[in-house]
Amino acid sequence: MRPHTIRRLVILTEGQFGVHHAKTAIGVIRYGRDDVVALLDSTIVGRNVSEWLGPRYDVPAVATLDEAIALGADALLIGIAPTGGKLPDAWRAVVVRALEARLDVLSGLHTFLGDDPEFASAAAMSGAEIVDYRRVPDRHQTAVGRPHRPGAKVILTVGSDCAIGKMTVALELERAAREAGLAGVFVPTGQTGMMIAGWGVSVDREIADFLAGTCEWLVEQAEELGDWIFVEGQGSIDHPAYSPVTLGLIHGTTPHAMVLVHKVGLEEHDFEHITDASYPIRPLTELIPLHEMVAGLVAPSRVVAIALNTADVERDDEARRIIGLTEAETGLPTDDPVRFGPTRLFGAVRAALESEEMT
Amino acid sequence: MRPHTIRRLVILTEGQFGVHHAKTAIGVIRYGRDDVVALLDSTIVGRNVSEWLGPRYDVPAVATLDEAIALGADALLIGIAPTGGKLPDAWRAVVVRALEARLDVLSGLHTFLGDDPEFASAAAMSGAEIVDYRRVPDRHQTAVGRPHRPGAKVILTVGSDCAIGKMTVALELERAAREAGLAGVFVPTGQTGMMIAGWGVSVDREIADFLAGTCEWLVEQAEELGDWIFVEGQGSIDHPAYSPVTLGLIHGTTPHAMVLVHKVGLEEHDFEHITDASYPIRPLTELIPLHEMVAGLVAPSRVVAIALNTADVERDDEARRIIGLTEAETGLPTDDPVRFGPTRLFGAVRAALESEEMT
Repeated sequence: MRPHTIRRLVILTEGQFGVHHAKTAIGVIRYGRDDVVALLDSTIVGRNVSEWLGPRYDVPAVATLDEAIALGADALLIGIAPTGGKLPDAWRAVVVRALEARLDVLSGLHTFLGDDPEFASAAAMSGAEIVDYRRVPDRHQTAVGRPHRPGAKVILTVGSDCAIGKMTVALELERAAREAGLAGVFVPTGQTGMMIAGWGVSVDREIADFLAGTCEWLVEQAEELGDWIFVEGQGSIDHPAYSPVTLGLIHGTTPHAMVLVHKVGLEEHDFEHITDASYPIRPLTELIPLHEMVAGLVAPSRVVAIALNTADVERDDEARRIIGLTEAETGLPTDDPVRFGPTRLFGAVRAALESEEMT
Repeated sequence: MRPHTIRRLVILTEGQFGVHHAKTAIGVIRYGRDDVVALLDSTIVGRNVSEWLGPRYDVPAVATLDEAIALGADALLIGIAPTGGKLPDAWRAVVVRALEARLDVLSGLHTFLGDDPEFASAAAMSGAEIVDYRRVPDRHQTAVGRPHRPGAKVILTVGSDCAIGKMTVALELERAAREAGLAGVFVPTGQTGMMIAGWGVSVDREIADFLAGTCEWLVEQAEELGDWIFVEGQGSIDHPAYSPVTLGLIHGTTPHAMVLVHKVGLEEHDFEHITDASYPIRPLTELIPLHEMVAGLVAPSRVVAIALNTADVERDDEARRIIGLTEAETGLPTDDPVRFGPTRLFGAVRAALESEEMT
């Protein structure tokens, strides 16, 4: 990946924005350092992202790539997550047209666009770049038990399920650290985090033997960038499909502390399975000692705070009531850093790490 | 991989047989269905495998490939594990010579020989096959919560460390099941197991996101082959580098029962780390509930027996004494299935699964 310049993005979200699983588009719009000039989404033409995310986010939806180019777009970001990880044929023509017009094409799909002969040839002709964020470096190294740099504090977000906000919590905490005058670093471990921060590895794509080693290496890089290091977690330790990725992050980053993320109201794991079996979300009071025990198999760590995602709770006072209940139930500082800002939650994390000299 | 025909192997072990980490060569000689006609190892020329493994294994060591070909070798198996996973230059010429002489070349290295232009071209010219056992299928599917076939019993070997005999225990138990007239199946999950059984996936090479899905799929295939399914475990759940692979096997195969493998005398994890830090082996009384708890995060399972590797205990009576102590300490049937045969240990596994109707 070449050094990050600020791009002007059009994000392909066709039919998925405001419906479900547009978490890449929303993450990049909310937290990315690139400008987003348009959504390419014929199902919401004439509408604007501000209707969903508030007036700070003035991004129109357009029906064609050429309209986005007229708005100044210089890169096309694939913001849809098609089943099977392959780009539907209908969108191939748009990708080719973007590359021919010298727009970079940015993708987090499992199927690499850069390996597609038609796309590769179009990019070579125009000089556009294809960035496949899920392509991992050919590093191929296992973990080596690297100790943390003295002074560095590594905080990993873990969660009761996948897709509930572990990346967002890490980003919010990093922002709070920087606002407190500290050298905060966000460590991207998935494609959306990489699109936002411009570096990192999509660790779910790593070869299993090298997963912990790559997580260790990401922290090594982060320790050169700052002291307060917030690692984006993935999956959950009890997820029937993704638990190995979660464990690789826990054992590979050997965090000083963990922040446990949970979405209020969630009862079942996000898991497309072929039977009627139930995969319930565990109670927080069970998840806290579980994560400390699992981490402690390699290096001691503690859950120091709970981050609640209260997006499905309509009223602020109800959200505050639930946060209070959770605090009483777990005995840990609890907040929703998106709804109420990350200052208080970061303060709790900082106090826990500094007072107990956990580093 | 094409259907398995019985090959006549020469195994390249240069300088590593009888010294350390020749576990691929020894596994293939002991358990493989191919004939082994020679070791290619200039450091032990004139000696014979029978000196190490007993009179059943009459395999001479030779200094040159041509001597092995004269003995009837039709395939070269790479039995050395070079640091970094790449074949040293000194051995490239031997591989080329083997391919030119139409010997298949079989490798479990992380660096794929089939991707090497010189090797690929030599193979294409002669019609020899290059088999890279670590190359995983392009299946790319996450776990789907597949239930086991009724009647199938899935037993996973887990362990206190890597490289202590989990594959061997699974192979011995499968043999005992077949000797008891049952349809036993060995499920290879590493390159040596694959060389022995002719199928499987080297799961440590799988993309982390698909690891549990691939383990699930291996069991699905095994359930078409028989009822008593012994899955080769990998790594250990508390290993600083390999724990994600272990967890993928536990959560992906959802075993009805686990057999815990431990090597007597082992105190530290097999882990090349860059500091003086200590990574001690946990006591069995801790590892038993740990594995049951971790498995239970996705599907309930029990540790039903202990397999002790007593290779470093000289006398049989001392080995028996240690086995008795372990049995008393853990409350579980315990034996060394290599030293004393697998019949008793398999009987205990069978009794546990049948009496408790754990399936």
